[in-house]
Amino acid sequence: MTHLFVTPAGNKLVTVILGDGVGPEVIRSAQRIIAATGAPIEWEEREAGEKVFLDGIHSGVRADTIDSIRKTRVVLKGPLTTPVGYGDNSANVTLRKLFETFGNIRPVRELPGVLTPYSGRGIDLVVVRENVEDLYAGIEYMQTPGVAEALKLISRKGCEKIVRLAFEFARSEGRTTVHCATKANIMKFSEGMLKRAFEDIAPDYPEIKAQLIIVDNCCHQLVRRPEQFSVIVTTNMNGDIMSDLTSGLIGGLGFAPSANIGNEVAIFEAVHGSAPKYAGKDVINPTALIMSATMMLRHLGEFDAALDIEHAVLVTMEAGIRTRDVSGDEGAVGTTAFTDAVIGNLGKRSAKWQVRDYKPLTLYDFSPAPDFVHARERRYVGVDLFIESPLDAETLGRSLEDLSRDAPLRLKLISNRGTRVYTPTGALTDVVDHWRCRFMLTNDGGDMTDAQLIDLVQRVASRHSWMHIEKLPIFDGKPGYTLSQGED
Amino acid sequence: MTHLFVTPAGNKLVTVILGDGVGPEVIRSAQRIIAATGAPIEWEEREAGEKVFLDGIHSGVRADTIDSIRKTRVVLKGPLTTPVGYGDNSANVTLRKLFETFGNIRPVRELPGVLTPYSGRGIDLVVVRENVEDLYAGIEYMQTPGVAEALKLISRKGCEKIVRLAFEFARSEGRTTVHCATKANIMKFSEGMLKRAFEDIAPDYPEIKAQLIIVDNCCHQLVRRPEQFSVIVTTNMNGDIMSDLTSGLIGGLGFAPSANIGNEVAIFEAVHGSAPKYAGKDVINPTALIMSATMMLRHLGEFDAALDIEHAVLVTMEAGIRTRDVSGDEGAVGTTAFTDAVIGNLGKRSAKWQVRDYKPLTLYDFSPAPDFVHARERRYVGVDLFIESPLDAETLGRSLEDLSRDAPLRLKLISNRGTRVYTPTGALTDVVDHWRCRFMLTNDGGDMTDAQLIDLVQRVASRHSWMHIEKLPIFDGKPGYTLSQGED
Repeated sequence: MTHLFVTPAGNKLVTVILGDGVGPEVIRSAQRIIAATGAPIEWEEREAGEKVFLDGIHSGVRADTIDSIRKTRVVLKGPLTTPVGYGDNSANVTLRKLFETFGNIRPVRELPGVLTPYSGRGIDLVVVRENVEDLYAGIEYMQTPGVAEALKLISRKGCEKIVRLAFEFARSEGRTTVHCATKANIMKFSEGMLKRAFEDIAPDYPEIKAQLIIVDNCCHQLVRRPEQFSVIVTTNMNGDIMSDLTSGLIGGLGFAPSANIGNEVAIFEAVHGSAPKYAGKDVINPTALIMSATMMLRHLGEFDAALDIEHAVLVTMEAGIRTRDVSGDEGAVGTTAFTDAVIGNLGKRSAKWQVRDYKPLTLYDFSPAPDFVHARERRYVGVDLFIESPLDAETLGRSLEDLSRDAPLRLKLISNRGTRVYTPTGALTDVVDHWRCRFMLTNDGGDMTDAQLIDLVQRVASRHSWMHIEKLPIFDGKPGYTLSQGED
Repeated sequence: MTHLFVTPAGNKLVTVILGDGVGPEVIRSAQRIIAATGAPIEWEEREAGEKVFLDGIHSGVRADTIDSIRKTRVVLKGPLTTPVGYGDNSANVTLRKLFETFGNIRPVRELPGVLTPYSGRGIDLVVVRENVEDLYAGIEYMQTPGVAEALKLISRKGCEKIVRLAFEFARSEGRTTVHCATKANIMKFSEGMLKRAFEDIAPDYPEIKAQLIIVDNCCHQLVRRPEQFSVIVTTNMNGDIMSDLTSGLIGGLGFAPSANIGNEVAIFEAVHGSAPKYAGKDVINPTALIMSATMMLRHLGEFDAALDIEHAVLVTMEAGIRTRDVSGDEGAVGTTAFTDAVIGNLGKRSAKWQVRDYKPLTLYDFSPAPDFVHARERRYVGVDLFIESPLDAETLGRSLEDLSRDAPLRLKLISNRGTRVYTPTGALTDVVDHWRCRFMLTNDGGDMTDAQLIDLVQRVASRHSWMHIEKLPIFDGKPGYTLSQGED
């Protein structure tokens, strides 16, 4: 907590972004409730989102907003909108990336009076989603006019960071089980990276039960027995799906708080959208943002205020005070009245609905050095050259064999859509014009030079067009490339 | 149906693979029931799975099994096991790939007496999952000792095939809505490929309502209001998660039939495992395999037999005849008794539980040519060179600017973990030693030659090591590469 900005009056300063649509209403609700607790919070209001885009700022985030966050290191944020025609950047993503908030924490719990198919089972779980890497880097290439490629990139450092966060978060909430959900059975390197980091780090948390689970089975189990889960750590894409799935289990995004945690900055927000059609109508349910604000208060060390608010929300809902989205029009209260009720219930405790005994979250320090993992020895044993060709597998294969004859790199196989098609296997593979052609050094134990690789590329390019090269490494004796289905 | 193999006795020949664990029991159950309907089916029993691996056959599939499938074109299959230590190949995947069964059809429906949180809502939906492409090609590379990459490859041809199958399947079952679930908002090229194919093909099915949905929202909706969905078509990885999720909604894998459909071959199977601890104990629930067999019968044109079996299963379950997994030990019947009950109920109809009015499924013909999409004009405007370096962004950037000075390809930006880090943006990105360095032609409108690219690679390689190259194409005026977060 050394980085917090404390004002001369002794208050903790927080950057607040009202956001678009219903954003200002839910933010004001949380601010009023926090003020009523007496927690020493001061706000620095800054802008991001629709208006900023319309002012011609590309990223959707003003420079003085970034400056404020650099100073305060803590943000409470309403939903942001990117207006149509203002590009593909989302101000939400910009903020997350700018401040390396590598972990997205998405708690869901059963709430009083919010009836779902799972009511009564006591769902109380948290998805800890890696928030920076994976397919969300958005690195894509058209390999041919009809074949697209996206790069799924996962680093050991990114995995260690998210795994540590998951275990530390479990510890801070007194949780005793952490599941790691991956598709490591299919993607042994990339998804396997998270699995291995989890296996390596779990022993540092002996009081926590560490369990591996395949992501598809995890989603199956989440709809069958969600109460068996407490913390689930997962990669970015899987986490996107799972956090939306789990928020569905407890009644929807209106009850889904979210924290984006980094070592420098933390951003607290609701995950629901800006819901423009409800904006200014005093009908929106502020619960998700209020609960995000309680996460923020704990991050700021204001545990008592957070506890009071959490209890007050439970007491309010238990008393049947509900917004339109929960109870329908009949007997529903508006945003203001709900907020007033929560404020009125500050200090009260529900007999039935429990709140966890929270402790400060420890953030683990990681070296900023880029080279997080070293190989003691390495060599490159071949190359995958990706070729665009309208030829059939056999004609292409013979041509490549011909071109690489007497070269130090020889054709080993061609695969198409992930299946070996040359030398022929008899598979009925329906091919596309994107061929992954693997060439291996003919001398075992050799180390491919760039000159050898370039020579090969020039030979191949004399007859075929290529668009993509991957070197095949051996790091510390382990192949850094997968075999294709059908490859020996 | 022209490809079916009809025996001299006039029976339709099917390759049957008993499989491992409980496989033989569930297959025998389905075979007995089919025999009792009088459907003209003859079986050719062949082997795959554990025993075949143990016999030293790598793929887990015997040659005479493949020959049989080539002949019959239709397979009924029990669960297969890969013994520990026998490599990473699964015989299931081998079979799917060998016979290009590009579409996995996973229906789930509410069943009598199978109580779930969703009972009474009438869940009746089908996930149509692309079964060949996407991250399941398993093409992975260690880019550096600490950074893994998996390639997500999606073709227009693959997308058109699965979209056509989804619409044709909807038509064959009288379904009137098809959702297409993608993450096209993040992966515009790869996931966007399915979205665009769906938008282009939907008008050919004017009687069917075509709806796009983001995959995370789809999973959210699936746990909140699953009854709103009828057919969902999606890419391989998403479909893996969603089909397991949806089978969870209706009581689990014991009720989840599956068809792997290709233009040449169709494989019908249950998706549950081989459950070795229940093998030979006459306790396993054969419902999933029986329902897979009814899909097979319809595929074979035996609609009356399929209808009889489907009704008989519903009548049996409605009468409270249930296996251990549904009812617990008390009052449960075994596999044989359940099968006998279904046979005894052939010809009966449930008053309450409906069965769809099925029509034959039309399989759309696709050209076998690899070059499915053509660009009228194309050029390459630059290259992404992926470099491994322990340097910081600024030092690396200046070095690359220096190396590419006066070259036709100049450094445009460096990104790390998907965020631009050079020229500096002020982002707090925690970097790894894997740098995506984008070089663009300095002359607008030019077409990069291999000689220019190789010259650049040689310049860069004089000081840095690289492992991956992607050319940046423009196809018909459209950039075939994405901009990085923070790139203009």
